[in-house]
Amino acid sequence: MEPTSASISHRLSAVRHATPVVQCLTNAVVMNYTANVLLAAGSTPAMMDTPGEAGLFTRKAASLLINLGTPDKEQCQAITESVTVASEIDLPWVLDPVAIGDLPIRTKLAYELLSHGPTAIRGNPSEIIALAGAGTGGCGTDTKDFAESAVAAAHTLARRYGSVVAISGATDIITDGQDDIRLRNGNALLTRITGGGCALGAIISAFLAVEDSTPLQAVAAATATYTIAAEVAADSAAGPGSFGMHFLDALNRLNQPTFTSRLAVDL
Amino acid sequence: MEPTSASISHRLSAVRHATPVVQCLTNAVVMNYTANVLLAAGSTPAMMDTPGEAGLFTRKAASLLINLGTPDKEQCQAITESVTVASEIDLPWVLDPVAIGDLPIRTKLAYELLSHGPTAIRGNPSEIIALAGAGTGGCGTDTKDFAESAVAAAHTLARRYGSVVAISGATDIITDGQDDIRLRNGNALLTRITGGGCALGAIISAFLAVEDSTPLQAVAAATATYTIAAEVAADSAAGPGSFGMHFLDALNRLNQPTFTSRLAVDL
Amino acid sequence: MEPTSASISHRLSAVRHATPVVQCLTNAVVMNYTANVLLAAGSTPAMMDTPGEAGLFTRKAASLLINLGTPDKEQCQAITESVTVASEIDLPWVLDPVAIGDLPIRTKLAYELLSHGPTAIRGNPSEIIALAGAGTGGCGTDTKDFAESAVAAAHTLARRYGSVVAISGATDIITDGQDDIRLRNGNALLTRITGGGCALGAIISAFLAVEDSTPLQAVAAATATYTIAAEVAADSAAGPGSFGMHFLDALNRLNQPTFTSRLAVDL
Repeated sequence: MEPTSASISHRLSAVRHATPVVQCLTNAVVMNYTANVLLAAGSTPAMMDTPGEAGLFTRKAASLLINLGTPDKEQCQAITESVTVASEIDLPWVLDPVAIGDLPIRTKLAYELLSHGPTAIRGNPSEIIALAGAGTGGCGTDTKDFAESAVAAAHTLARRYGSVVAISGATDIITDGQDDIRLRNGNALLTRITGGGCALGAIISAFLAVEDSTPLQAVAAATATYTIAAEVAADSAAGPGSFGMHFLDALNRLNQPTFTSRLAVDL
Repeated sequence: MEPTSASISHRLSAVRHATPVVQCLTNAVVMNYTANVLLAAGSTPAMMDTPGEAGLFTRKAASLLINLGTPDKEQCQAITESVTVASEIDLPWVLDPVAIGDLPIRTKLAYELLSHGPTAIRGNPSEIIALAGAGTGGCGTDTKDFAESAVAAAHTLARRYGSVVAISGATDIITDGQDDIRLRNGNALLTRITGGGCALGAIISAFLAVEDSTPLQAVAAATATYTIAAEVAADSAAGPGSFGMHFLDALNRLNQPTFTSRLAVDL
Repeated sequence: MEPTSASISHRLSAVRHATPVVQCLTNAVVMNYTANVLLAAGSTPAMMDTPGEAGLFTRKAASLLINLGTPDKEQCQAITESVTVASEIDLPWVLDPVAIGDLPIRTKLAYELLSHGPTAIRGNPSEIIALAGAGTGGCGTDTKDFAESAVAAAHTLARRYGSVVAISGATDIITDGQDDIRLRNGNALLTRITGGGCALGAIISAFLAVEDSTPLQAVAAATATYTIAAEVAADSAAGPGSFGMHFLDALNRLNQPTFTSRLAVDL
């Protein structure tokens, strides 16, 4: 069963070959880094989030990322436009429900978006728990919950909305409600740079843009690619600053031998 | 009298131990770097600046940063929400009055915010002078004034609003209106990257979140930490690009021996 | 005829000496990197884009950059304010019509701005073609057109609006409608970081701020400086992450011997 080093490498090559346009409606803090991460993985970022343009652009995009980190009024409107189009034309899209729970604007919007059936949902455990309707969410991007604590919530979401759910943590857990995949790759430095989680949502979107796989396989391959790049980067990093730079270089260079030597998956 | 290398190291350890959530309502240019600087110092950035959420979040934050660099309408509203809450619950907060003086929106807002008594104010000399009601401010983040020229204005602000005032420059001057501390650390490369001053405001906020010190001590320790990290980074930098990266690594690694060998303070 | 390595070096020195204030109304994705690029080249970035302040600030700026990448309502208003002032006081300004063509808000705004006669226009071939009224634009910042395909459109724009037009590509083509300059410097890594094109628009604005040259000479010198810095950076880069960093360092250090050994110009 996937992911194997061969299947991950195959899917990453497909992204690099297709250079899919990933439209990102994401938070203001991580826009720049997210775009650079998408480029390093071989895809084409497009951050069009102006109401009146966003939905039109979605018709030309290969996939969509919705991240609720800084939801100002115009962006909320653009998010609704783009998700409506994605729904209508069956475009793959990812929901990253940043810090939902207590904060009313993003939480209400997240619940509304769920009804459109995101192809994938990525979040920290507290966000996944809050999205499933239990718990009160985390405090920004920081969360102390273990990924395992959110598995039941992830199953609920996956079955209710037909989504693949990726819970981020020291172990990443990915589920379609039937099969659970546990990936033990990554490095704690990913939590020491801003956007370390948000950019994973974008990479998941890039992998979903490439057909020829189930969403579960795509999300797993994206997560493995991302977390293995983090391991490679951490080997040369002297701290979070150099880690952020090496991460882009590593993502750009990843190949099958690296996947083979590093992949740590529990199926 | 503080700061000593021991006291700075002690306060930085307290930040790393508490990982305080610092809510930042800051300008769009420096959001990403500010968040990365806060993470490198051991604190937890949260850039919640949506009206209707910002004030609610302030109740959960450990401290607050208000930076007026790009004050759009929604952010101005969120700033008022958050400062009102901070005032009400006695949360430490920092005002960074970027480029006030001639520009009417930020200048009017800065004066209104003053009445809530910021715990600390950080600015370039021209901004401090403009905030005290004299002078017409600077031109963006660039200023040619020497820190010494703003000392009288800083004293006025400190005494009138009960704030600690930090004037940035080759020598940083920190005052509570009674005692002045002059810190001679730092490196000119801090002025060659965008956000070099803005992120200091955030670090000041992080240090204010940790109790067990007077605001004057906290602001001085934050400034010394920041400017000494800049010196360490400059030693390995080949220019402003690598400086920005090394600065994050250096901030992440700072320890007492480095403070001991580098601290240059005039009490 | 210019550019020669001596003329480019002379103009870069003039920027470093004057440290002109370049006001940037640019997209949210690239604000940070654009500001850092301007600083590395020796100029002073100022990202004032708040309506009610933007136009006032333009009166103090040395030049202006308008980039249409994320045109929210307030920024559109600020852009109109600033361009009106620039027009009135004959301030040099650059239009970067990001992704115009199919997207209605930015496209309509770009056409309106043209009537104010931008000093320079920078874009990818598809954007230049769309701006001249033919074609339907590109897909975000990605474009497969060759620069040569947009030369006729560039001539049309240059003659109609009195602008210098810079078409970005493997070969950069710069024209005032009479003379065409082809610059064969640069490196593909510039297309693998976000803002690689947008920041060139800012550097063009910085060079236009320094008098003592025709706009054609200024745009050519800016483009050569930028693309030669990219070559130097690529020599030490291990991927797009380190390239982005080395690019800032290289831009900061460029000198005449480097121009002499690398300049590849067809007049």
